[in-house]
Amino acid sequence: MATLHPLDPLTTQEIEKAVGLVRKAHGSLHYNAVTLWEPRKAQLMAWLADPEKDPRPHRVADVVAIGKGSKVYDGLVDLNEEKIIKWELTEDVQPLITMEDLQIVEHVVRKDPKVIEQCEILGIPKEDMHKVYCDPWTIGYDERFGRKIRLQQALMYYRPHIDDSQYTYPLDFCPIFNADTHEIIHIDVPPVRRPLSKAPPNNYHPASIEEKGGYRTDLKPLNITQPEGVSFKLDGRTIDWQKWKFHVGFNYREGIVLSNVTFNDKGEDRPIFWRISLTEMVVPYGNPDHPHQRKHAFDLGEYGGGYMTNSLSLGCDCKGAIHYMDAAFVNKAGESYDIKNAICIHEEDAGILFKHTDFRDESVIVTRGRKLVISQIFTAANYEYCVYWIFHQDGTIQLEIKLTGILNTYAMNPGEDTKGWGTEVYPGVNAHNHQHLFCLRLDPNIDGPNNTVFQTDAMRGAGEVGSAENKYGNAFYAHKTPYKKVSEGIADYDGSTSRTWDMANTNKLNAYSHKPVSYKLVSREVPPLLPKPGGLVWKRAGFARHAVHVTPYDDEQIHPAGRHVPQTSGEPSKGLPEWIGDGSASIDNTDVVLWHTFGLTHFPAPEDYPIMPAEPMTLLLRPRHFFLRNPALDVPPSYARTPSQIKGLSNGVTDATDKMSTLAFEPTTNGAKTNGSCCNGS
Amino acid sequence: MATLHPLDPLTTQEIEKAVGLVRKAHGSLHYNAVTLWEPRKAQLMAWLADPEKDPRPHRVADVVAIGKGSKVYDGLVDLNEEKIIKWELTEDVQPLITMEDLQIVEHVVRKDPKVIEQCEILGIPKEDMHKVYCDPWTIGYDERFGRKIRLQQALMYYRPHIDDSQYTYPLDFCPIFNADTHEIIHIDVPPVRRPLSKAPPNNYHPASIEEKGGYRTDLKPLNITQPEGVSFKLDGRTIDWQKWKFHVGFNYREGIVLSNVTFNDKGEDRPIFWRISLTEMVVPYGNPDHPHQRKHAFDLGEYGGGYMTNSLSLGCDCKGAIHYMDAAFVNKAGESYDIKNAICIHEEDAGILFKHTDFRDESVIVTRGRKLVISQIFTAANYEYCVYWIFHQDGTIQLEIKLTGILNTYAMNPGEDTKGWGTEVYPGVNAHNHQHLFCLRLDPNIDGPNNTVFQTDAMRGAGEVGSAENKYGNAFYAHKTPYKKVSEGIADYDGSTSRTWDMANTNKLNAYSHKPVSYKLVSREVPPLLPKPGGLVWKRAGFARHAVHVTPYDDEQIHPAGRHVPQTSGEPSKGLPEWIGDGSASIDNTDVVLWHTFGLTHFPAPEDYPIMPAEPMTLLLRPRHFFLRNPALDVPPSYARTPSQIKGLSNGVTDATDKMSTLAFEPTTNGAKTNGSCCNGS
Repeated sequence: MATLHPLDPLTTQEIEKAVGLVRKAHGSLHYNAVTLWEPRKAQLMAWLADPEKDPRPHRVADVVAIGKGSKVYDGLVDLNEEKIIKWELTEDVQPLITMEDLQIVEHVVRKDPKVIEQCEILGIPKEDMHKVYCDPWTIGYDERFGRKIRLQQALMYYRPHIDDSQYTYPLDFCPIFNADTHEIIHIDVPPVRRPLSKAPPNNYHPASIEEKGGYRTDLKPLNITQPEGVSFKLDGRTIDWQKWKFHVGFNYREGIVLSNVTFNDKGEDRPIFWRISLTEMVVPYGNPDHPHQRKHAFDLGEYGGGYMTNSLSLGCDCKGAIHYMDAAFVNKAGESYDIKNAICIHEEDAGILFKHTDFRDESVIVTRGRKLVISQIFTAANYEYCVYWIFHQDGTIQLEIKLTGILNTYAMNPGEDTKGWGTEVYPGVNAHNHQHLFCLRLDPNIDGPNNTVFQTDAMRGAGEVGSAENKYGNAFYAHKTPYKKVSEGIADYDGSTSRTWDMANTNKLNAYSHKPVSYKLVSREVPPLLPKPGGLVWKRAGFARHAVHVTPYDDEQIHPAGRHVPQTSGEPSKGLPEWIGDGSASIDNTDVVLWHTFGLTHFPAPEDYPIMPAEPMTLLLRPRHFFLRNPALDVPPSYARTPSQIKGLSNGVTDATDKMSTLAFEPTTNGAKTNGSCCNGS
Repeated sequence: MATLHPLDPLTTQEIEKAVGLVRKAHGSLHYNAVTLWEPRKAQLMAWLADPEKDPRPHRVADVVAIGKGSKVYDGLVDLNEEKIIKWELTEDVQPLITMEDLQIVEHVVRKDPKVIEQCEILGIPKEDMHKVYCDPWTIGYDERFGRKIRLQQALMYYRPHIDDSQYTYPLDFCPIFNADTHEIIHIDVPPVRRPLSKAPPNNYHPASIEEKGGYRTDLKPLNITQPEGVSFKLDGRTIDWQKWKFHVGFNYREGIVLSNVTFNDKGEDRPIFWRISLTEMVVPYGNPDHPHQRKHAFDLGEYGGGYMTNSLSLGCDCKGAIHYMDAAFVNKAGESYDIKNAICIHEEDAGILFKHTDFRDESVIVTRGRKLVISQIFTAANYEYCVYWIFHQDGTIQLEIKLTGILNTYAMNPGEDTKGWGTEVYPGVNAHNHQHLFCLRLDPNIDGPNNTVFQTDAMRGAGEVGSAENKYGNAFYAHKTPYKKVSEGIADYDGSTSRTWDMANTNKLNAYSHKPVSYKLVSREVPPLLPKPGGLVWKRAGFARHAVHVTPYDDEQIHPAGRHVPQTSGEPSKGLPEWIGDGSASIDNTDVVLWHTFGLTHFPAPEDYPIMPAEPMTLLLRPRHFFLRNPALDVPPSYARTPSQIKGLSNGVTDATDKMSTLAFEPTTNGAKTNGSCCNGS
């Protein structure tokens, strides 16, 4: 265990050790989660600063277990001391729904007489119940049932053939499943019934494509090779690439977690972020008809972005030389298991990093960029989320998310009016409007933990056109507003001022610009939460009410919709709204966390069906006044030629620059060759 | 000539033929431009519909020539008839500044006594005048000089050594150059002088990097190869790739022009856009001090995005298998010349195109995407603009622009206050705030020329929380506003409603969604024009006053700031504001053009200096209700496995899908191999 980094996820051995200790003390339980309880920041920072002297943080397991009668236990197990240091019965909460919890429901609904009866009403004979499927969702919150009983709602579908896409045959009723008794306790039936669709299947699998004319045959191979391997080094889970250094963690809730992110600036590893992750999301659907208001999944808090993650060994999720990392989890019975290749780490060409040509003499420099991508893909029932954490050589961190998979669908009758709440993407298939709102948790560490967040708005200068101060009216500037109190650090996006946010260290000024060293959040896909203030989603997803919230750092504050999200009523709102309190806490020049909610609003169209082309979304974290100059100037150029060399071409002058400018065409191994080879076509 | 497509740029032979005819008729002139006069739309559409029957459009040269006394002639030469069909003396205009025009200025300023005197005042001895450089800009508009005389302003710099970056040594005065007499007619001298900076050079060339520790040596080669060549076919300049078909044009103003863009939908080439191009841009600077208001270059209208384009043979601007196209232009003397490799056409891997995994049984499909990139790079004095027109297999067209090159800089004294109008990016170097605003001209042809533009806003549903119609407050929908008159088609961006615009054909509904077939403009980098209404930039750059303008199609309306942009006063505003007129013209279900102004506001930081890491910006044109389903379903998957096959694994069932699912691992040439090979690391 001494070889593990304090932030490394629990190993399978550690998980089973933790379970063993709990079992000994508390007997038979169902395990919901056994994950790393991250060391307290102060202790870990001290240890990292001096690994020799300070006590190494203990390995501690954070345990969520469920006993009979949906009793929920939260505990902590010190694996070094081999003892349980905390064990509490937590009243009035429901932990997230695991894949195992989901798997059961389909089997139960198929056998339930009331469900069979409903299927018959829609035209499905009881002998066809094996063709009936369901996507079990958390119930969200339903005031009729509260949160005492652990519930799921079953979104119902039908498959004429096992290989048909069920989303073309949605059923109009919705059973409620009791996870404790494995019973259907209620079925929501709409006032207007919608018999099973008679439309032919709308499939995307190879047999159906072959039937409809087959696959394209004119796509030629495009190969990406790295004959000398990757450019990054791994020390355990700490990655070192192009001056970047950071730890790659992973847990059942957030999936990928990046910690202690630093950039080597002239020999010094300068801290930038202490911790970055996606901590929550909510996907509200826009159809007001009961019971669709329950469709607003918190995919991370109610299911787990780690639990749902794909094993990337099957498909072709990355190209190039790949390094994979596995993920270890606990199952219901308390046994550990692995998801192989949960994380993909690879490099990609990034196109032109910088270029300039002097129009006088065609002296030129062109330098090609490389990027490092840390990615995972998770499947939330119908949807796929592809998450790419991208590191650039110029100090930029980019988060790209691609949405693909399949639209959530509901039944509609021929000629039925969607009333604008959805789109008929195929006969009988109503794809409801929805939003995907992600919550990015940024714990900045800009040259140290004491940071201040500034709001930056592009503003017109004072002075009317014709005035002495602004005669031609062309004055404009960056208006910066520091957030000093939590109440001030609650903000919406403003496209009309190209609003951005700077995470700055006001104790350290850039020697040239005399402005605080900072990293800027540049995010342009920032729709407001469309469900209304005071409504169910607004109450449950407090983090999504605004684009930005800033709070003082607290070790306990990771999950902005609460630790246990399913069946929360939002009365009171859990997580971020609690932490904001009266808003009087200082966030000025102290250890702060920036919570950013971003995403998109999706009005479906037939092009998104039967499987959706990936829709990309991105945001940037860019150094501003952090470096004294472009930190990527020492990336070997593909080609460089100076004015004196151009003269030199005639009079035979050569110098150091000449050596570099021809690098592009020499078989060296410092990257220039690769760039160079693009000059002759690869 | 019969082999040329009517939209092909003029060949060198055609250019010289046109010049020959003009010379014969009008004697000695300086040539500003000789470019293709595109066939009138109606005539070309008729010919394309039936190339055999209809008369083939003549090849016509559009000529701009300048005579003594800055007399400007606009003419048309019919190359088939070999005669001049139009020749006019155009009063009161100045055609754009060519590279030749720019080259002269530096030589003149170095010899001008008044300039030498100013240099001496700043501490540059007259024997060092060969170290003095200037970036000549159009003067924009200076009310003191009007537009009768053809003028340029010389932004002055100094180089201690020929290889030093001059932008670190800006000089504080600005000579005005008369292009007709080659004289300096005036020098703008600031009230406070700023002697030559004593700071050491801030260079990015290889010698200076070697000095400061040298290049990174840990970047391993990343090779991209296409052993079987590219997947596109070219018939002249008409490209056929993955169901897309379009013509690639190029001219001195707009650079790349894409025409007659169609997508093959089940055997039918469906029209989408008649013509797409960047037609104008303006780069206003935000410092109100005289004479910086003159810094607001119209890079396309005042210099030409074609004239300034880079030859891509030198550096490594693209990777993979590249197809290049050259560009032919006229010089001042009337001779034609080529820019080799002005356009780069290549394919790139596009990551995951779509993916879905069924959580029940891990049945899965993952399909990798490919994209086609048509690109050019042009250098506008200090800045580089990299323009990428990207075609995706799902029917999406993406425009990506990367900004790189060098910041425009001005001198500042030690301790001088920038007053927020700029940033000290290096001692003595003030980089002024600025915007890059591009005008994208979209001539939609969505299943035909008669189209209507709709504004789409994401809106909350009616009904308060608790009301019968919206009990839980979760109702939201896409509010669509059709633009029926030109006055209605003038709109700003609204981030709070995630505003997009649909170019729709209301005469044709999608059979499933019953909504008009359309293409959606999704653009999120849309700052307002920051120079104030009524001010100089606002008057000259009418197109930039709003994010969107829609006008009825007119063959003559291509350049939204006017045909001749330099030295326009904006009184009255040229181009788009003229075309808008009283706004009463119908744009409902007729042939329309959508003008979209987008870009970014740049507040410089030291990281952007001495050469700026590429800053990317992108927008999408996406099919909505245009196709009946995802049009990329027939792209060969990297891997596919259906539920029945998973059962089959035990009982030996195989079928068509099995063939496909293993394609990934078979050496075929239909693209699957490439995707497949990524599974084992390339």
